[in-house]
Amino acid sequence: MNLDCFFYPESVAVFGSFKKGAIAYEILRNIVEGGFEGKTIPVNPRGGTVEVAGKTFEVREKLDEPVDTAIIAIPAKFVPGLIDEIGPLIKGAVVISAGFSEVGNEELERELIEKAKKHGVRIIGPNCAGIFGVHGKFFGSFEVRVSPGGLALISQSGAFGGAALAMGNDEGIGFSAFVSYGNAADLNESDFLEYFADDENTKVIALYIEGVKDGRRFLKALRYASERKPVIVLKAGKSASGAKAAASHTGSLAGSYEIYRAAFKQTGAIEVEEMEELFDAAKAFEMYSRAGKRVAVITNSGGPGVLATDKLERLGLEIARLSDETVEELRSFLPPQCSVKNPIDLIADADYERYKKTIETVCRDENVDSILVICVPPIFIPSEEIARAVIETDCDKPVIVNFMAGELVRGGVELLERHGIKNFPTPERAARALKWLSMRKKE
Amino acid sequence: MNLDCFFYPESVAVFGSFKKGAIAYEILRNIVEGGFEGKTIPVNPRGGTVEVAGKTFEVREKLDEPVDTAIIAIPAKFVPGLIDEIGPLIKGAVVISAGFSEVGNEELERELIEKAKKHGVRIIGPNCAGIFGVHGKFFGSFEVRVSPGGLALISQSGAFGGAALAMGNDEGIGFSAFVSYGNAADLNESDFLEYFADDENTKVIALYIEGVKDGRRFLKALRYASERKPVIVLKAGKSASGAKAAASHTGSLAGSYEIYRAAFKQTGAIEVEEMEELFDAAKAFEMYSRAGKRVAVITNSGGPGVLATDKLERLGLEIARLSDETVEELRSFLPPQCSVKNPIDLIADADYERYKKTIETVCRDENVDSILVICVPPIFIPSEEIARAVIETDCDKPVIVNFMAGELVRGGVELLERHGIKNFPTPERAARALKWLSMRKKE
Repeated sequence: MNLDCFFYPESVAVFGSFKKGAIAYEILRNIVEGGFEGKTIPVNPRGGTVEVAGKTFEVREKLDEPVDTAIIAIPAKFVPGLIDEIGPLIKGAVVISAGFSEVGNEELERELIEKAKKHGVRIIGPNCAGIFGVHGKFFGSFEVRVSPGGLALISQSGAFGGAALAMGNDEGIGFSAFVSYGNAADLNESDFLEYFADDENTKVIALYIEGVKDGRRFLKALRYASERKPVIVLKAGKSASGAKAAASHTGSLAGSYEIYRAAFKQTGAIEVEEMEELFDAAKAFEMYSRAGKRVAVITNSGGPGVLATDKLERLGLEIARLSDETVEELRSFLPPQCSVKNPIDLIADADYERYKKTIETVCRDENVDSILVICVPPIFIPSEEIARAVIETDCDKPVIVNFMAGELVRGGVELLERHGIKNFPTPERAARALKWLSMRKKE
Repeated sequence: MNLDCFFYPESVAVFGSFKKGAIAYEILRNIVEGGFEGKTIPVNPRGGTVEVAGKTFEVREKLDEPVDTAIIAIPAKFVPGLIDEIGPLIKGAVVISAGFSEVGNEELERELIEKAKKHGVRIIGPNCAGIFGVHGKFFGSFEVRVSPGGLALISQSGAFGGAALAMGNDEGIGFSAFVSYGNAADLNESDFLEYFADDENTKVIALYIEGVKDGRRFLKALRYASERKPVIVLKAGKSASGAKAAASHTGSLAGSYEIYRAAFKQTGAIEVEEMEELFDAAKAFEMYSRAGKRVAVITNSGGPGVLATDKLERLGLEIARLSDETVEELRSFLPPQCSVKNPIDLIADADYERYKKTIETVCRDENVDSILVICVPPIFIPSEEIARAVIETDCDKPVIVNFMAGELVRGGVELLERHGIKNFPTPERAARALKWLSMRKKE
């Protein structure tokens, strides 16, 4: 199904109150400040004007021209009527308004869908936080704006989605799209999976779900998407108490977790255990589509190298056995105190040259599938120098980077990120990133 | 053993080069900028002056008066001679210099210890990153300075220690002390465990070890410390490859991990799996000494509440069954859309009053041991308001806080931290904090 009217719209109308702080105002502000280049029409029966980001918009009393999508944040009871009225003018509607099936108003939700069907309008929501089409500079939500990149985030929970966007900014994640689909009265997780599977700006899909209504359809969509790109899933409501809580808040039956787990495994989706892992997996897959199991660790500090090695083995990855040629070559240019066995310890005074030559040498080794580069910069070597070594290294295998620590590596990490290289803040999180990459089946 | 001369010195001499960027210069800078109020004497045979932080120090050609401790960053081969020379004037020496047993110079290390013993001088190092006595404003290391608090960090790896200090700053952790003990030629992990067990500024001890030389002594020290305060241990070199790597870099036999694990369990030490967990556990224990297993979750957003619930159950904690009185009281003041079952969902518009009253009501419930408070602030409620509710709530049970997301909660998190309340950035990390607290035996 083509959902371009939502994620790459050419025109949008926003319905609601345009008082400062009101939902519709905040969404309009996000659309304008986000640099949306299409037509943007605020609508409220009271008319008047609204100022956002230094621009003054006339608020129309009603929609009187066709737009791709409508974003609706008016009281629930008026939504079906509005859809009936503007149905002939719109392709899709995002219904932010709450007060439908999630509070027992099933009838109102049915009415909404009836009106939408009558006009062939597709609905996202109701009771949702909205959508972003980041590459179309369309921020149709009150959530915090994000940077363009490869991650499409599909979230059943609006609050989880909003938090994940803001935290994604902190983690240096780039997004292609975001959708909070709320009650899923019409479009649901399966529709979005299929759409983003074919969206060329999306490199990886992340999905937060509590429960799905149509398991068979979900399985099919998950398989379709996973065959095309990495799909990361965070399933909430796995425990007995968690499932009960999920049922009470989305009304969705979480169902047996075992069934979901089997589905994830069977379709090749990457299941993560925690919110933070979702970010880490997304970061890894924004850079690489997969990696083999044999890892070489290159470090300038022993302890963190040991921690990485422990975690890699624990996760079922292999500490690559370097070839004799590699060991010999490393020995030829590394100082004698360095360890040329994997993990390779370049010791504290490792500089640009030592890192670069080592990564390139190891990268040529046929026994190595991927490389984990650790750097704890000593006071006399700026982290930017090591970052440059990683950036300028010629290596065609996945390189996962762990620069520690805090303020001391801020410069290096920023430099890496400007070149599309994401940093993992601890050795263990970097090791886990390689684990996700190794779980992805060959295409 | 009293190690006050190291962690609460009244006078210190620093030996080495005072050129900008040199190790001794950086240590002197840290001591001066850190506000050390005792006598500080730079020593170098060439004499001259050195300027740090706007102050000019005369560099003495030799030490000619007694000091509590000497920090030594001169070439390794001169260290034993120096100790012999200044032995009568000092109580302890921190030997930063590398080039001893870790590179095969066992003889030089033996000589160093012989000279120290002759004069009754205790040695930290050699081949270490130095020490901090934070409450004495003594920063005797080139590592980044930290804020005062309750955590004493003991690290076998200098790089790990340095990274952990910088990351601890980012995590809002307060420190009482730091020691990187390098080759442990004289003082070792057991000495520090025993000392910090009785140090009144230390509320929690964190230990990074790869291997210990005297297992029996270690067991005794670990038990002594664990009986007095929480001891968090991160053991590196657990896997086969990790143990080999550890042996090659510290020369210490990592030994069988199973033996260590049994020791941690037997003594009541809290073993963590990852570097990040060490921070989280330290944060939890800086606030609370322990907690029971029955947790109440209070949230303003369903999804994150479900994730917390899942994780708590997975970790073996219990979702507390609220008493009928509690449920009734909650029902009396919460809006009807709120869920009064645990996890308690206050829904998105929960404000100061709703959070405060709910926490206080739940806190009075005898079925509840501890509380996990989650907040994903909606756009119309500033995170500071909810932070104030947590701060001003009257509750005598452990309250662990998870404010999400990124920039949206920066203000609230800062406010919490100013009041000594640490934030856990995801529901799962907050749940794990409660797990650590529940592992601690009753005193």
